[in-house]
Amino acid sequence: MQHPLKLGIAGLGTVGAGLLHLLAHQKRHLDRRVGRQIVVAGISARTKAKDRGVDLSNITWFDDPVKLAEDPNIEVFVELIGGADGVAKAAVEAALRAGKHVVTANKALLAEHGVALAELAEEHRVALNFEAAVAGGIPVIKTLRESLSANEVHRVYGILNGTCNYILTTMTDEARSFDDVLKEAQAHGYAEADPTFDVGGFDTAHKLAILASLAFGTRVSFDQIDVEGIETITEADIEAAADMGYCIKLLGVAMQTKSGIEARVNPAMVPKHSAIAEVSGVTNGVAIDANYCGSLLLVGPGAGARSTASAVASDIVDIARGKILAPFLTPTRNLKAYTKAKIGAHKGAYYVRLSVYDRPGGMAAIAKRMGDREISIESMVQRRPRASLPGIGAHQDTGTPAAVVLITHETTEEAIRGAVDAIEKDGKVSERPQVIRIEKLHENAAPDGAEG
Amino acid sequence: MQHPLKLGIAGLGTVGAGLLHLLAHQKRHLDRRVGRQIVVAGISARTKAKDRGVDLSNITWFDDPVKLAEDPNIEVFVELIGGADGVAKAAVEAALRAGKHVVTANKALLAEHGVALAELAEEHRVALNFEAAVAGGIPVIKTLRESLSANEVHRVYGILNGTCNYILTTMTDEARSFDDVLKEAQAHGYAEADPTFDVGGFDTAHKLAILASLAFGTRVSFDQIDVEGIETITEADIEAAADMGYCIKLLGVAMQTKSGIEARVNPAMVPKHSAIAEVSGVTNGVAIDANYCGSLLLVGPGAGARSTASAVASDIVDIARGKILAPFLTPTRNLKAYTKAKIGAHKGAYYVRLSVYDRPGGMAAIAKRMGDREISIESMVQRRPRASLPGIGAHQDTGTPAAVVLITHETTEEAIRGAVDAIEKDGKVSERPQVIRIEKLHENAAPDGAEG
Repeated sequence: MQHPLKLGIAGLGTVGAGLLHLLAHQKRHLDRRVGRQIVVAGISARTKAKDRGVDLSNITWFDDPVKLAEDPNIEVFVELIGGADGVAKAAVEAALRAGKHVVTANKALLAEHGVALAELAEEHRVALNFEAAVAGGIPVIKTLRESLSANEVHRVYGILNGTCNYILTTMTDEARSFDDVLKEAQAHGYAEADPTFDVGGFDTAHKLAILASLAFGTRVSFDQIDVEGIETITEADIEAAADMGYCIKLLGVAMQTKSGIEARVNPAMVPKHSAIAEVSGVTNGVAIDANYCGSLLLVGPGAGARSTASAVASDIVDIARGKILAPFLTPTRNLKAYTKAKIGAHKGAYYVRLSVYDRPGGMAAIAKRMGDREISIESMVQRRPRASLPGIGAHQDTGTPAAVVLITHETTEEAIRGAVDAIEKDGKVSERPQVIRIEKLHENAAPDGAEG
Repeated sequence: MQHPLKLGIAGLGTVGAGLLHLLAHQKRHLDRRVGRQIVVAGISARTKAKDRGVDLSNITWFDDPVKLAEDPNIEVFVELIGGADGVAKAAVEAALRAGKHVVTANKALLAEHGVALAELAEEHRVALNFEAAVAGGIPVIKTLRESLSANEVHRVYGILNGTCNYILTTMTDEARSFDDVLKEAQAHGYAEADPTFDVGGFDTAHKLAILASLAFGTRVSFDQIDVEGIETITEADIEAAADMGYCIKLLGVAMQTKSGIEARVNPAMVPKHSAIAEVSGVTNGVAIDANYCGSLLLVGPGAGARSTASAVASDIVDIARGKILAPFLTPTRNLKAYTKAKIGAHKGAYYVRLSVYDRPGGMAAIAKRMGDREISIESMVQRRPRASLPGIGAHQDTGTPAAVVLITHETTEEAIRGAVDAIEKDGKVSERPQVIRIEKLHENAAPDGAEG
């Protein structure tokens, strides 16, 4: 048996405590499977006194995580502090410079400083593993780094934020408003007091930046992502979507296009009868379209102490087994520059909800603005307003707006935004039209005769 | 850069040709990502003359795959011949004995001789990788061996046979009979002339045997699996299932129970609104319930030249990167003996379809037989017979049977089988009742306050 692998763990919040719990409770299982003991040699957190449900009395305590990172007694530094800068970054850098392997669950750190840290790791020939940084317990980092290494990835997309998916699922299942569900989620502690980071799509963007780099072999470029949140989604949209066979999900999407990488976070329509539409509540789902493998969808817990600890532990086990890969798969010197595609060039179908003044010519003017840009309409529904549905208008009286919902055929972002701007200027609508992208999913390939 | 990794590939059918295609077309991509060239140094197949769409003129040809396996010029032997015994087994054994790494897509070989081959591999300190043997392009072997290595797995289950899923999906979508869809599938080459291996559930059982061993750390025990196929599923079952909120899928299920491992292949009811119910056509889906990670579902192509080649290539890349793990994760000497749970002890809800003679006392007798065994009924529907539905009876006239469909609350296999046997003996039904297990899926956990 090899000598024990000694860990230093910094940050003992939900995930840190979960990891200590896992390492204690799964010790025999891990010893047997890994053939090597994994030992916690040092810990660091803001408060020493707090009861974390695990006996810490035999573990060396460090007030300063940087000191823990540099401690000669540890081989692996596990960073569970969080935050893109500050002490988390300082400690990870110190660990890498001291030749320690690093395991982190910190998506913000990787999204903003991933390449610089990967360079440090490669320079010192140590691991920088981050399975837990994206989609919690779902093994998407390993799948991209290892299982798909012979493939070129066309697109990676998914439901990457449990809070948003919980809010959208509850709005859909219980026909309630965004504000109402958000308040409840905050009261239960599922959403932060300042929910912007989650509901505004920024957390999803951090994760997408990491996935895009792994998928396309490019430098991590968080600031190149177009981000929309779910704050503008109304019950009217959810109900109209359902009637038309769709479900609304907040997706992070990164795809290769001829003009560069299109990376965006936006509420998207997905077909109601699809596996990704069934990813509900706090569950996450990540889909990958690759040139040989085809399309994969991985569904599982995107957060939570136990599942995130499981992902952190898998990174530690890889190190215990001696497996050290380049952090972004491709050595950083070979990472391609990130070329951003113009979002205006996005091609796809759209959902458009308009509050049209019920007067002659309203619909004709709208149709003209669409026709001018060669946007053709796949289906159109004029929805009966209900008093309970915000954004639709309470009355059917002449003069009050009627909700009209359109699904377009494939067009471009530029065309649809131009049409909608023109419609608004025409004064035929009572509020800014709602525009939601329809995400085209992979269609199942026909069987090709191979066995099984 | 390291020296090139030299492969010998035996078997140039669909997957073998797909692998040659991948290695040729993805060469630059692989060189850049792996940092090491992967070269095909030798090949072997039954017919040399056949055009496989790839230039083979510079590759040494071997008539005998065993000779290729032993050739000093190769480091990795890739076995794509197929079959549990015969030349595939002989060649893999020869390769391992000669100290070559082995990559194989051969589920039958592993299901029947996996442990013996793993022992050979461990003895010679070489890899025996088989990602492609289960669920094609879905990285389920890597997920079990690596991503979940800190977890105890409670259950692994899934849709593992594309032919069966294609047949069931088509029966459901087009309201057609098993025989009708099977014939069409055979005509198109999606199903074999003798379809028993697929539709009888044996292919699924081979794959399940491999998954169960990895999941539970036990020896591979293909012969301990209870196998039922899809031949008895009628349109009446599919329609009744849909009415009651279910969808029928052929599942392989392996779970830890108090009395041992319950491993079975059977048509199962899954809730219509679940991600696994949306796994349609030839697509496969594998779900894993683990004690820390929670529940994962992996969906993707279960077969096909390109996706299987992608999985084989990922195994080769792992070897090129120097990663050699024990084939079944746990060293074979530490694998636990396989203890089979009695299938009679299976606990779950059931779907039962009965053709009841429409005479006084028929339903009362059925209710009594159920009540005797403390089976309680969750819902019951008497379905109107339709001329077009086999298994239901063509007329509503007195004396002809009526279809009654029951969904039970949780009970045991022993109780339901006893009740059904007694009902049949009572002479109140016109044919053997149809009994289908309802598979309880993992319910999404409530959010637990961890971020993201």
